[in-house]
Amino acid sequence: MPKILIINGPNLNLLGTRQPEVYGRVSMDEYLKALSVDYPGVEIEYYQSNHEGDLIDRLHESGFDEELAGIVLNAGAYTHTSLALADAIRSIDRPVVEVHISNIAAREEIRRTSLIAPACRGTIAGFGMDSYRLGIEALL
Amino acid sequence: MPKILIINGPNLNLLGTRQPEVYGRVSMDEYLKALSVDYPGVEIEYYQSNHEGDLIDRLHESGFDEELAGIVLNAGAYTHTSLALADAIRSIDRPVVEVHISNIAAREEIRRTSLIAPACRGTIAGFGMDSYRLGIEALL
Amino acid sequence: MPKILIINGPNLNLLGTRQPEVYGRVSMDEYLKALSVDYPGVEIEYYQSNHEGDLIDRLHESGFDEELAGIVLNAGAYTHTSLALADAIRSIDRPVVEVHISNIAAREEIRRTSLIAPACRGTIAGFGMDSYRLGIEALL
Amino acid sequence: MPKILIINGPNLNLLGTRQPEVYGRVSMDEYLKALSVDYPGVEIEYYQSNHEGDLIDRLHESGFDEELAGIVLNAGAYTHTSLALADAIRSIDRPVVEVHISNIAAREEIRRTSLIAPACRGTIAGFGMDSYRLGIEALL
Amino acid sequence: MPKILIINGPNLNLLGTRQPEVYGRVSMDEYLKALSVDYPGVEIEYYQSNHEGDLIDRLHESGFDEELAGIVLNAGAYTHTSLALADAIRSIDRPVVEVHISNIAAREEIRRTSLIAPACRGTIAGFGMDSYRLGIEALL
Amino acid sequence: MPKILIINGPNLNLLGTRQPEVYGRVSMDEYLKALSVDYPGVEIEYYQSNHEGDLIDRLHESGFDEELAGIVLNAGAYTHTSLALADAIRSIDRPVVEVHISNIAAREEIRRTSLIAPACRGTIAGFGMDSYRLGIEALL
Amino acid sequence: MPKILIINGPNLNLLGTRQPEVYGRVSMDEYLKALSVDYPGVEIEYYQSNHEGDLIDRLHESGFDEELAGIVLNAGAYTHTSLALADAIRSIDRPVVEVHISNIAAREEIRRTSLIAPACRGTIAGFGMDSYRLGIEALL
Amino acid sequence: MPKILIINGPNLNLLGTRQPEVYGRVSMDEYLKALSVDYPGVEIEYYQSNHEGDLIDRLHESGFDEELAGIVLNAGAYTHTSLALADAIRSIDRPVVEVHISNIAAREEIRRTSLIAPACRGTIAGFGMDSYRLGIEALL
Amino acid sequence: MPKILIINGPNLNLLGTRQPEVYGRVSMDEYLKALSVDYPGVEIEYYQSNHEGDLIDRLHESGFDEELAGIVLNAGAYTHTSLALADAIRSIDRPVVEVHISNIAAREEIRRTSLIAPACRGTIAGFGMDSYRLGIEALL
Amino acid sequence: MPKILIINGPNLNLLGTRQPEVYGRVSMDEYLKALSVDYPGVEIEYYQSNHEGDLIDRLHESGFDEELAGIVLNAGAYTHTSLALADAIRSIDRPVVEVHISNIAAREEIRRTSLIAPACRGTIAGFGMDSYRLGIEALL
Amino acid sequence: MPKILIINGPNLNLLGTRQPEVYGRVSMDEYLKALSVDYPGVEIEYYQSNHEGDLIDRLHESGFDEELAGIVLNAGAYTHTSLALADAIRSIDRPVVEVHISNIAAREEIRRTSLIAPACRGTIAGFGMDSYRLGIEALL
Amino acid sequence: MPKILIINGPNLNLLGTRQPEVYGRVSMDEYLKALSVDYPGVEIEYYQSNHEGDLIDRLHESGFDEELAGIVLNAGAYTHTSLALADAIRSIDRPVVEVHISNIAAREEIRRTSLIAPACRGTIAGFGMDSYRLGIEALL
Repeated sequence: MPKILIINGPNLNLLGTRQPEVYGRVSMDEYLKALSVDYPGVEIEYYQSNHEGDLIDRLHESGFDEELAGIVLNAGAYTHTSLALADAIRSIDRPVVEVHISNIAAREEIRRTSLIAPACRGTIAGFGMDSYRLGIEALL
Repeated sequence: MPKILIINGPNLNLLGTRQPEVYGRVSMDEYLKALSVDYPGVEIEYYQSNHEGDLIDRLHESGFDEELAGIVLNAGAYTHTSLALADAIRSIDRPVVEVHISNIAAREEIRRTSLIAPACRGTIAGFGMDSYRLGIEALL
Repeated sequence: MPKILIINGPNLNLLGTRQPEVYGRVSMDEYLKALSVDYPGVEIEYYQSNHEGDLIDRLHESGFDEELAGIVLNAGAYTHTSLALADAIRSIDRPVVEVHISNIAAREEIRRTSLIAPACRGTIAGFGMDSYRLGIEALL
Repeated sequence: MPKILIINGPNLNLLGTRQPEVYGRVSMDEYLKALSVDYPGVEIEYYQSNHEGDLIDRLHESGFDEELAGIVLNAGAYTHTSLALADAIRSIDRPVVEVHISNIAAREEIRRTSLIAPACRGTIAGFGMDSYRLGIEALL
Repeated sequence: MPKILIINGPNLNLLGTRQPEVYGRVSMDEYLKALSVDYPGVEIEYYQSNHEGDLIDRLHESGFDEELAGIVLNAGAYTHTSLALADAIRSIDRPVVEVHISNIAAREEIRRTSLIAPACRGTIAGFGMDSYRLGIEALL
Repeated sequence: MPKILIINGPNLNLLGTRQPEVYGRVSMDEYLKALSVDYPGVEIEYYQSNHEGDLIDRLHESGFDEELAGIVLNAGAYTHTSLALADAIRSIDRPVVEVHISNIAAREEIRRTSLIAPACRGTIAGFGMDSYRLGIEALL
Repeated sequence: MPKILIINGPNLNLLGTRQPEVYGRVSMDEYLKALSVDYPGVEIEYYQSNHEGDLIDRLHESGFDEELAGIVLNAGAYTHTSLALADAIRSIDRPVVEVHISNIAAREEIRRTSLIAPACRGTIAGFGMDSYRLGIEALL
Repeated sequence: MPKILIINGPNLNLLGTRQPEVYGRVSMDEYLKALSVDYPGVEIEYYQSNHEGDLIDRLHESGFDEELAGIVLNAGAYTHTSLALADAIRSIDRPVVEVHISNIAAREEIRRTSLIAPACRGTIAGFGMDSYRLGIEALL
Repeated sequence: MPKILIINGPNLNLLGTRQPEVYGRVSMDEYLKALSVDYPGVEIEYYQSNHEGDLIDRLHESGFDEELAGIVLNAGAYTHTSLALADAIRSIDRPVVEVHISNIAAREEIRRTSLIAPACRGTIAGFGMDSYRLGIEALL
Repeated sequence: MPKILIINGPNLNLLGTRQPEVYGRVSMDEYLKALSVDYPGVEIEYYQSNHEGDLIDRLHESGFDEELAGIVLNAGAYTHTSLALADAIRSIDRPVVEVHISNIAAREEIRRTSLIAPACRGTIAGFGMDSYRLGIEALL
Repeated sequence: MPKILIINGPNLNLLGTRQPEVYGRVSMDEYLKALSVDYPGVEIEYYQSNHEGDLIDRLHESGFDEELAGIVLNAGAYTHTSLALADAIRSIDRPVVEVHISNIAAREEIRRTSLIAPACRGTIAGFGMDSYRLGIEALL
Repeated sequence: MPKILIINGPNLNLLGTRQPEVYGRVSMDEYLKALSVDYPGVEIEYYQSNHEGDLIDRLHESGFDEELAGIVLNAGAYTHTSLALADAIRSIDRPVVEVHISNIAAREEIRRTSLIAPACRGTIAGFGMDSYRLGIEALL
């Protein structure tokens, strides 16, 4: 049974309440439940932290786990400022797919450059919560 | 039966022969056949042109067709230089998903900015030919 | 009887349906009819294409016609990306007036620079469909 | 009888003598006389100052006058440096049309950006003294 | 009894009528009356001009007055374009506090850089008319 | 009794010992004691961390507390590098006031841009330790 | 007998009449005749189009022809704006030599960067019509 | 007897008291007296204003006076922000020499570009009050 | 007996396994053992964290320890993004030497600027694991 | 008998040994011998120096020699940094052709701008040692 | 008897013949003779070289000579590219005055920044050969 | 017995007298004597020149000497302007270590980029004269 790790970065613990006009009204808990129904044959792990260092630690910890099909990473604002996260992705074995809920290309200037994208397998952005689902598809 | 239109931009007629280290060795014909097997319930139309104007014409032509679930667009190099294409996407009704075979964020500077991304529903890049498949998933 | 050629660039065939909050709800056909009423003594030709190359071809074709008072050109998005169009304008004899329906100076960054403006006689922008009328006035 | 206010900014008091290869040899006085002949049904007021503050004061003073059809403004070099003038235009009720005698897009770098254009109704540039006439047309 | 001078720059004479969605609906006159009630022990002088030169003259005139606790300066759009005003602040003895009604950091690019800030004692921005009050507090 | 939360970012635990020519010689402990004397009717909470993630966690934790009048935030160097902190401020309900001890506009280039300012209610900078006091005033 | 293909881009159909102070007074027809005299043992094909897409189509069509010694390409203004053309050159087998009639390094800013140069074998610029001749020499 | 006009821009009325570590301790009055002793055969006029518009007015007024050998202009901070002043210099007949008391090339970034320099005959900077004297020498 | 503290930043816990073509195949543990043999008279402490905040905390904790000869800091990717770390270095007493295993000047653009370098005593880069050894030499 | 001068700049004395993957394995001596065989009717002089000043001196010395058909100049790295060399070329009478062995447009950023190109007759780059031969052809 | 050293940089040995429309028709020899007549009480030494290193050597050699009133330096194109020359000026005791024959502010972009200006006492530019004379005046 | 070559660039012949607040008061002669005492088993050669070309010549001359352990190069200001020097380093066999006396990262903008660093083995900066000693250590 394949395993997928979803990692969410800063402020994504507030999904469903935070700026709903940008991020929608579904909480991550509700969404994870729906995912487990849709993907009964996949073990989905979830991790969230607002700490850049925690995200790096978690990537290191899971990044050599051969049972893991890959990692779906929404790095939130660290997408645009964390070279250390990009280095962590480059340092591990498992493939990482970058996802974004909103279409970051259509937002303010600073959100148009992703420091982690060059280190990831690929990028999916702009499909709301479905971006995670497409990320899982990409890894399977 | 839902209909999807795949549009390929310049040089993508050479898929399978062109720079295979970047774009792989599968031709679009072969890939379309595989898609029709995987999505028997979806009518997949295909259009390719090296002409910016042709791509705009085709977007106008299909862009108000209510039977179309949406358009999967790989604009090739026009991604980075064609504001007219972005305007065409903004001018039509049907949703457009931007896809790229390679991870454009990991290539040279000029390929890191997409003029059409802000006009599209979302973006999928870096998954080889599977980027098209994920684009169809996103629209369905 | 003086002759004026109006040339419209990409996506302007959709005038009246495309982004009406920016471009208004009048189609070019309706507008041309109104113009012919207002300027009974002027022969107004009209040409539209989404193809950069077609626009250049048309400029070459009419650009040495001594019966033509001049050309009113709304190059749409090519305004900002087509150096070839600017060169075409520089290559011909007849005066070209650049017009824009919207106030491009008040829109996004990329629309604030016109590559063709330095090659034109002058520029008129921001007066809705009346920009064409002012362009004709400028040439007569 | 409609009223139009023409405002000229710095150095435009020298029209006719100043850099005639750029600005021509017609003085503003002569031109205003010609205008009053051409537009017998329009009351044309004229104001010129080399002082940024005077121009703002005048915009405030006339900018709520409901008898005024609008203001034709050639802000001269303040076009490119005066954010305060742009704010003044945004603060008033009457429409303002920006005009330039020369084709500023074909001049040096600093003259290619207009700070006031985004605050104006529209822009007319490059038609010599006729730019004023077209500005009046645009307002009527 | 301490004395405070409030100086307002261009277009701030229109406070209460100008772009009320940005600057609110209270006129400076009303606000000054409220201030005199709240600070009975402080003599509050007020000066406004749309002229950069007038603002510099006034700073020179009051800038060495030892009875003045300091100057609260809202330089309006000159904040972003007037190096001469910055030099005037550096040339005088009395402390100057820069205030802004709106949160200039959240507005367009050109308003994010203040040329006068480095010359002032400190900056207060974004608190509506209360920015003036906080400026007075800072000086007292 | 209104409650105010003061949050200090990286290196501000060293206030009083760190670069006293920039930050002064008063420690935060001493200053908080003085504040509690000056504002007997206000409950002042204090939090400091050198961890970007901790600051975000704390904003989330207190950011929906309806008894809180608001948050006074000196984000130290994270002011200029943390988009995640800006997002956290945008994600919560309570108003946040940005404060700085030094006049950041007069320091080196990188300190002249605040990523968090556009997300805050307003900004107060340059008044030494009094910047905190003015921040409290602004919230009350 | 070796074969050479000369491709000319936009506006080069007007050679001899267009801006003769920049491009000279010789038409391409006359020049091709002179070439066929000078190179009796070489078959010289010629293609011109103002359409970016046509140029790409032609490169694809001839780009795998093993009888072709190579392609001499004067892409005109597309040199500076067409990444798609550069991709087409990279996609084919035959060597491409970039030529320019004028010394583009001595012209305006936008003409100093060639998007296609990195994809070509080499570049020859500034020798008038002789640039084509030198391009042929380079391929032989 | 030749006539020279010295024009001083903003804040230069405070010479002798303003930032003496940059501008020295000599007032303009004292300096003018010394000049009249050194140049008994030259009539030296002096004008100072903090108003950009006044400086332009004065340049217009004296700029066609054939008895004037030329103008020595220290435009202060307007040197770096006033394109209108540059245009005024270009509009008049008499030669203008730009002078600066301090070595502006060794000061902050914004003072390293002079908008008026290209319009002047030449520039003299960095010699303290002697810069004026050298300006007079240059004109005589 | 002098004491030296070596601090390693993000991803450097993976030394020996991470991108060995860039960082080599020696783990930090092995290297520290070798160092203790080479420097028998020096007490070498070691600290690593992926958390920016932890690194700052550790600098504060050891930064006033008078028994410490100094700190050898390899801040990894935080070198290029952490102004807070630079402030921490400026806030403490003990000298800090910046080291890098790879020649960061020969890597991608973002790695060519070090935010912490101006706060350090000096920099050593490009000598593989020997960079640490040279850092110790520099402090002794 | 026409005379041609070939001038090589810095590090080109090492041709054949230096970075052969970029510059090939042929030494200049060998190449000059081959040239003299191919061009028996041309006198080919050769000069090489690593000194910018020597190159300028040599250009001055030969630059007015009427027997010289022209100069073929490979300025090596000075191409990108020496404005003085460009001025020397502009100062002399004889035509100068710029050549490069490698395709500088396909190398790192700094090698994409040539300071001397605007001063030369034309440029030839990317044809290996044949670039010199084409340079001679261009001059003959 | 005071001594002045005039140093001329690259290409200035050609004064009188080089680009006379920019630099005039007077040779340096003729000019030095005229100077010795005008300043009989001053010993004027002259040095010219096209070598950056020679200019630095000469500055070192004369730069501590207490009999020298100062150095008048026209560094030609090295003005804009030689940081080493600027360092040499900073390294010596004698004052250096930067002079230019042409008004460099009115020439192309690269000539608008002087690397040596911040190291010099002051700058004189635009007065033709008289710039040297004014430089001597400034030093005496 | 290993051999090391120390090369010093422009103005470093003045070490000990030049800007002692930046470069200290020790002359290179004194320092070389101390080095020979500290490294009795190493033959240390020394070369200094203010000429870019001389430095390149010397690198070529010694750069293939197999008895040389390597070169310690302080290129002074040429560090930031000489691409030719970087090419010379790339052209030779012996390893080169870049050293700087001062912490160039903490100085003005232009000194923060080293053109030669990417060509060197590694960089050591900021340790005063000890930078040379660390350079020797790095090579041994």
